[in-house]
Amino acid sequence: MKVLPREAPETMRVVRLQRRPEGLPVPGVDLVLDPAAPVPRELRPGQVLVHNDFMSVDPAMRGWMRDQKSYIPPVKIGDVMRGSSIGRVLASASPSLKRGDMVNCGIELGWCEYGVTQASKLRKIQAIEGYSPSVHLGVLGGTGLTAYFGLIDVGMPKAGETVVVSAAAGATGSVVCQIAKHVYGCRVVGIAGGEEKCRWLVQELGIDGAIDYKKDGGKTLKSDLKKACPKGIDIFFDNVGGFILEAALKQINFKARVVLCGAISGYNEKSLPPGPSSYLNLVSMSARMEGFILLNYADQYDKAYSDIEKWLSQGKLKYIEEQVVGLENAPRALLKLFGVDGGNKGRLIIDIHGSSSSARL
Amino acid sequence: MKVLPREAPETMRVVRLQRRPEGLPVPGVDLVLDPAAPVPRELRPGQVLVHNDFMSVDPAMRGWMRDQKSYIPPVKIGDVMRGSSIGRVLASASPSLKRGDMVNCGIELGWCEYGVTQASKLRKIQAIEGYSPSVHLGVLGGTGLTAYFGLIDVGMPKAGETVVVSAAAGATGSVVCQIAKHVYGCRVVGIAGGEEKCRWLVQELGIDGAIDYKKDGGKTLKSDLKKACPKGIDIFFDNVGGFILEAALKQINFKARVVLCGAISGYNEKSLPPGPSSYLNLVSMSARMEGFILLNYADQYDKAYSDIEKWLSQGKLKYIEEQVVGLENAPRALLKLFGVDGGNKGRLIIDIHGSSSSARL
Repeated sequence: MKVLPREAPETMRVVRLQRRPEGLPVPGVDLVLDPAAPVPRELRPGQVLVHNDFMSVDPAMRGWMRDQKSYIPPVKIGDVMRGSSIGRVLASASPSLKRGDMVNCGIELGWCEYGVTQASKLRKIQAIEGYSPSVHLGVLGGTGLTAYFGLIDVGMPKAGETVVVSAAAGATGSVVCQIAKHVYGCRVVGIAGGEEKCRWLVQELGIDGAIDYKKDGGKTLKSDLKKACPKGIDIFFDNVGGFILEAALKQINFKARVVLCGAISGYNEKSLPPGPSSYLNLVSMSARMEGFILLNYADQYDKAYSDIEKWLSQGKLKYIEEQVVGLENAPRALLKLFGVDGGNKGRLIIDIHGSSSSARL
Repeated sequence: MKVLPREAPETMRVVRLQRRPEGLPVPGVDLVLDPAAPVPRELRPGQVLVHNDFMSVDPAMRGWMRDQKSYIPPVKIGDVMRGSSIGRVLASASPSLKRGDMVNCGIELGWCEYGVTQASKLRKIQAIEGYSPSVHLGVLGGTGLTAYFGLIDVGMPKAGETVVVSAAAGATGSVVCQIAKHVYGCRVVGIAGGEEKCRWLVQELGIDGAIDYKKDGGKTLKSDLKKACPKGIDIFFDNVGGFILEAALKQINFKARVVLCGAISGYNEKSLPPGPSSYLNLVSMSARMEGFILLNYADQYDKAYSDIEKWLSQGKLKYIEEQVVGLENAPRALLKLFGVDGGNKGRLIIDIHGSSSSARL
């Protein structure tokens, strides 16, 4: 056991789940900054000490706060909040990683400044020219992979098909839109909240149409969808659920695929909202609605990363992220996912220490 | 044009859709017997005159009464009610069928005693030893095919998997149960209304368990399902929807398949009831919910019929039907599908003229 007196300070800042939220998580009450958590000081063989640089803010985190069995157990009260991060190795007791290596920590460390874990659970990553290291939390991380496998493996897009994406301006949605449009040659319509996001989807991401689901309190969604998809919907990639899923299901085509990625509209509800009454269209249209989680595809990550890097370099895919500086601002930033503070466009990233930290090693 | 003075009487009895039902169809008001409809008296080249012997009573008929676009247009007010039938050719202007041939009319003629149609739209059928000709409306007709393709193609059963079937005592459900159990070697649990049907499912059809969804007003369904499916649900074949679908979705396994065949629980509702809030389990379980209609498989009917005949002869499949005698009793019989008059076990068949008519030719 290697003891680490100099590599890290005695204490660090972490964000803890202090209470299970009812509705929107309340910063400072549900998610709380602990300014002086102990930094782990021992390395066993095979372990590394990591300094976290960037964390991501994900809708799935809201689910992990719920006291409810799922594909992964809930975060315990008082524990460091689970979340994805990338950082650099400060000290290593493993032959596979050395000091200075940049690593994708997945959800091993969570929302904290330092952590000790098995080297085998981390993925060594390389700087990508022209991108912040946080690209590995975005299009070259779980977000990109989720978009990739959800669209390609579950959705099975074919050129010319109509693809509709909800939460289209979000981290996953914005990648789905671009792959469907610029790689697969589909007709792509995004659904997002607010005129500005819609303009951005069409002008920046180059998709065929965008619908503001907030317009007139959502009353025009159905007719707007009809107008934007004159040939019906072949693939609906859903991150939202609720009345958006309901409306989309009404316009699916024969053999359509509804890719269930999440249902953020219900994540802050106390009990689950009703499902779509229009699900019976799956019968008359011989269509399917299918969920997936990223872990199913662990053996295919390498191929996916290499495809995504290629598409980035070919300009078929733009990586868009919004950075919030400071670990202390992470609990508030989480609310942006639910439309608070104007919401977010693309990937939402916490730069834990401010960009100056990246020169620290 | 061949004129038919002698082959058929001047008038016949038919059942017409007189009004679109609100809720349960009311015999004599929504579905009305017309005692003196004209019998078609001309055959064009390629056409045949058919004498209908048996009709089937199907949940889908309730959908066809609705003024609503679907995979098939609604029945028009005043028209003969659409439904499947089998009969015999009385006169033919087609080389492919001759007087006396037994034919499966599909939904070409509907609920009437006589009809003229293109011979090419009918399927010539043979008497099967030991079975009423109506077997061609049951396990050797649309019902059997629906069970066959839904279970096998959409459900993809594997030996040892747990298969749960709703409306298990019904026409389709009872066939699904038997194929899953006796052909595929699955563990099969049926859901049905009433103790007697449940006993019948286990004792007559030989499946592993049966649950009475009506017991205690449905309150024990969830715990009964858990008890009956200790390893969770791999395939749920759903004919019912509503709270039964909701409960089943809560207990699906990783990569489960929910086969959507229908949702009879909602067919008499004015507007569609909400969908299952538990649909999000499709995400955490990477599962799918998929609908189908029989017409998709038209090119594979022959293989299906030959498999089903083989299973019948091997005793793996029992054909069970309940006959109601007299066209005039058909509107009331339809209500049995919705549990009225004690419901039905197996296929529900109308013997239009009483069995003596089968000797008429």
